[in-house]
Amino acid sequence: MIDFATAFPNSRKVYELRTAALTPNGPSTTLRVPMREVALGGGEVPVRLYDTSGPRGHEVQSGLPRLRDEWIAARQRAGTAGTQLSYARRGDITPEMEFVAVREGLPPEFVRAEVARGRAIIPANIRHLELEPMIIGRNFLVKINANIGNSAVRSSVEDEVEKLQWATLWGADTVMDLSTGRNIHETREWIIRNSPVPIGTVPIYQALEKVGGRPEDLTWEVYRDTLVEQCEQGVDYFTVHAGVLLRYVPLTAKRVTGIVSRGGSILAKWCLAHHQENFLYTHFREICEIVRAYDVSFSLGDGLRPGSIADANDEPQFAELRTQGELTRIAWEYDVQVMNEGPGHVPMHLIKENMEKQLEWCAEAPFYTLGPLTTDVAPGYDHITSAIGAAMIGWYGTAMLCYVTPKEHLGLPNRDDVKAGVIAYKIAAHAADLAKGHPRAQAWDDALSKARFEFRWEDQFNLALDPVTARAYHDETLPADGAKVAHFCSMCGPKFCSMELTQQVRDYAAAHQLTDVEALKAGMQEKSTEFRQAGEIYVKSYVKS
Amino acid sequence: MIDFATAFPNSRKVYELRTAALTPNGPSTTLRVPMREVALGGGEVPVRLYDTSGPRGHEVQSGLPRLRDEWIAARQRAGTAGTQLSYARRGDITPEMEFVAVREGLPPEFVRAEVARGRAIIPANIRHLELEPMIIGRNFLVKINANIGNSAVRSSVEDEVEKLQWATLWGADTVMDLSTGRNIHETREWIIRNSPVPIGTVPIYQALEKVGGRPEDLTWEVYRDTLVEQCEQGVDYFTVHAGVLLRYVPLTAKRVTGIVSRGGSILAKWCLAHHQENFLYTHFREICEIVRAYDVSFSLGDGLRPGSIADANDEPQFAELRTQGELTRIAWEYDVQVMNEGPGHVPMHLIKENMEKQLEWCAEAPFYTLGPLTTDVAPGYDHITSAIGAAMIGWYGTAMLCYVTPKEHLGLPNRDDVKAGVIAYKIAAHAADLAKGHPRAQAWDDALSKARFEFRWEDQFNLALDPVTARAYHDETLPADGAKVAHFCSMCGPKFCSMELTQQVRDYAAAHQLTDVEALKAGMQEKSTEFRQAGEIYVKSYVKS
Repeated sequence: MIDFATAFPNSRKVYELRTAALTPNGPSTTLRVPMREVALGGGEVPVRLYDTSGPRGHEVQSGLPRLRDEWIAARQRAGTAGTQLSYARRGDITPEMEFVAVREGLPPEFVRAEVARGRAIIPANIRHLELEPMIIGRNFLVKINANIGNSAVRSSVEDEVEKLQWATLWGADTVMDLSTGRNIHETREWIIRNSPVPIGTVPIYQALEKVGGRPEDLTWEVYRDTLVEQCEQGVDYFTVHAGVLLRYVPLTAKRVTGIVSRGGSILAKWCLAHHQENFLYTHFREICEIVRAYDVSFSLGDGLRPGSIADANDEPQFAELRTQGELTRIAWEYDVQVMNEGPGHVPMHLIKENMEKQLEWCAEAPFYTLGPLTTDVAPGYDHITSAIGAAMIGWYGTAMLCYVTPKEHLGLPNRDDVKAGVIAYKIAAHAADLAKGHPRAQAWDDALSKARFEFRWEDQFNLALDPVTARAYHDETLPADGAKVAHFCSMCGPKFCSMELTQQVRDYAAAHQLTDVEALKAGMQEKSTEFRQAGEIYVKSYVKS
Repeated sequence: MIDFATAFPNSRKVYELRTAALTPNGPSTTLRVPMREVALGGGEVPVRLYDTSGPRGHEVQSGLPRLRDEWIAARQRAGTAGTQLSYARRGDITPEMEFVAVREGLPPEFVRAEVARGRAIIPANIRHLELEPMIIGRNFLVKINANIGNSAVRSSVEDEVEKLQWATLWGADTVMDLSTGRNIHETREWIIRNSPVPIGTVPIYQALEKVGGRPEDLTWEVYRDTLVEQCEQGVDYFTVHAGVLLRYVPLTAKRVTGIVSRGGSILAKWCLAHHQENFLYTHFREICEIVRAYDVSFSLGDGLRPGSIADANDEPQFAELRTQGELTRIAWEYDVQVMNEGPGHVPMHLIKENMEKQLEWCAEAPFYTLGPLTTDVAPGYDHITSAIGAAMIGWYGTAMLCYVTPKEHLGLPNRDDVKAGVIAYKIAAHAADLAKGHPRAQAWDDALSKARFEFRWEDQFNLALDPVTARAYHDETLPADGAKVAHFCSMCGPKFCSMELTQQVRDYAAAHQLTDVEALKAGMQEKSTEFRQAGEIYVKSYVKS
């Protein structure tokens, strides 16, 4: 396993300290909020970046330090146990909110208000003490999720914990454990105990295992017991496909690709087999009561999402989205935090409609989309087909983007695929942050751009999302260490380097007292007027021809 | 060198035949227009895709067959030599337009009208007889360009011809030869003689070689002679940085990354050194006269394009774009075909403004952009950072996208990088075609989606942009041949397969006479009304809380 120092040369993990009250008017504690600090050359101040990598180097069997032990215990002693939404609504700022505020560079009160409004969630099961809290909402940095999980076909517990550590090293903000094979419980236990990020699951997968894989044998009781089991372990958010209603199922018969969500198809089959309404829908209030006790957040599933460009934005998809909105409001009655899952496969011109309808129908609860893929013709490259859609929908307001790896539709992702998916999605999320005008996002780009222009090669590598790859690509063409200080690069060579030529332009201007832009413009006035007049003549002669 | 059959299993190259007049009212010829035809299983009709790979298997020293020999000769005999724009304006449909019409599936008269309007160009030097004509315009399929070229640092003639064949195999619609090292003339000769796609160059690079690499020593005469030399060889389009005006240069001093275009910085330095206006601007009408004689198209350069997110859409960039518009109109006076180059580095929210201004200021001449990159923080992955921007600007109306490889900003692309860049840009271009509603684009996606849903694995691979990679990824997890006919895949395994479950849903519905969607909906009416009422109660109770 590659470690932090190897992955991020010249970066170190630093902790910003913040004093926070454990309970309102109660004792306080000192929060230690992680950041990746990149040291730079050229007299530049270090750049601090959001860090998801968590404490590293611990024994897997011991798990991570229990950061939130004291926080949860203090609340229980004070008799104020509740969800982050309940605290926010009553005006309390929790240590989780303070922690998030430092990470995001925003006031704690703003964090509280967004959570209270339901526009952001802090997925944080009271049993997941190892968690470094994070927030999902469209007025914060766009987050990304990486899926891991063993399946009937392959994979082991150790592999999955390593994938978790690998995904968070590169920037995964949450991880979903989608295991469907043997040892679901044990695999999940080790994932949670070693996870600094929220863990999400789809409990229906495990419930289905318990009934031998036959959807028609699922019962509310089996599902309920599975929920409790996973709540107790510390899962931070559950995908619940309660919006797959019986009457929506036949609407999918006309589709090119029917139902492509596993959860959606399991419940569709149950509904038809029993000719009854989806038991997740009919028992939804009981589910709310269970998850509220642990502050598990909902990720309301989109079991009828489109599985192809042809099926995007169709009737069953939007019917379910309306129901997600209805369920969102029910969850809020119970102080349960909630986000909504979205597609999937959507051509670019239909992406915005998804965001607009979700904002309206789901009352601005955070949106959490899978891609979307903007074309189906590139299996093997769906991290790219979907990064396009993800960046766009992130800009439009989606709060979290579920990654897609190059193996999507083809096979199970290995380590390289997980990394490729995470990097592609960090790009999409960051591009969205820039487009939304996030000041910290812009500062990162500016630092790298400046390093590039000043030929601070090492700084350019070290500021990159993936420094080792950036350096390796440079070294393929110009391996000598001298090339790292050269004022040119391999693309143009020394004579043709545009950046070097620009420097010469600047030097020339300085030598000729042309530093003052306004003065130079004034000096050019006569000539430029002459050219502009010539231009007008050209235009006129064209118009008549 | 991988061949067509290996790259595209179960595909064959077919030729659609079309009779076309060589000259108006003159003799006719039979055009053979290439397509890639993918044979499918399951009784599906074969799918025909646009093909750029050209005739293959020829000796490099012999060059490709001279497809256009007869076409050009007939025009010369008829005394009607001119540019495609001149023919279009006088109402003539050339063999090139007919060829393009078949490739695009559009009426020849529509092709002619778009060329006449200046909204599309067919870059086709009368000396490039090996060319399979193609069109660049926003009412046609979005095209992509791949850059190749040796540099002072490395690369050879053989390498460059191989890169050309490699890039066109994967789908490059045009190729720019950006060589700056030794043997520029000879390298270009072999590239053109072996190219089925238009070749573009930046003549100022070779002119600079001729004056020992000192921009201040450039003269109009050296440049003019270089233009003629390249016109004679058969270059199809020239990047000409005639919009880098003296008065714009000082505007770049405030930028984070100054001038990053090689051509732009060469000319900026020349302007300042001589304190004179850019000689490409002052001699632009003479340039028009030279290129008109060979029907070389202009790609008006954007020498002041932004080199970082911080510099996007700034004053010097848009000042030059206005001048590009002025030059476009001048070129049209001379019947010279013209497109305009665009950025570069642009955050998502500023992309659309580029397209809108270009359409307005350049009178709808085709736009040809480099990416744009939507963030600077991911060197090593700029094929992805820029595919996002390229897809968006393609949707907004950009006619051709200049690819970016993973090595951008770091080193010279090797074969793998060229392929990665081409595939990322085929994705961007195709996503744009889908979003623009191109019927052929949608049909390709639908064919692949249907194959996926019906578990026609071989068809899914063979319809992919990169079939071999898709198959290899599948085989990593499930290598047995039996898996290619399995009704599940490695992601979920047999029990959890959503597509298999959907089929069961369909089967169940059929068995229970639930095939009629309307009937089933009616049957559900009572239940659904009940649930909707429950939903209303929930909403009301939330609103009051």
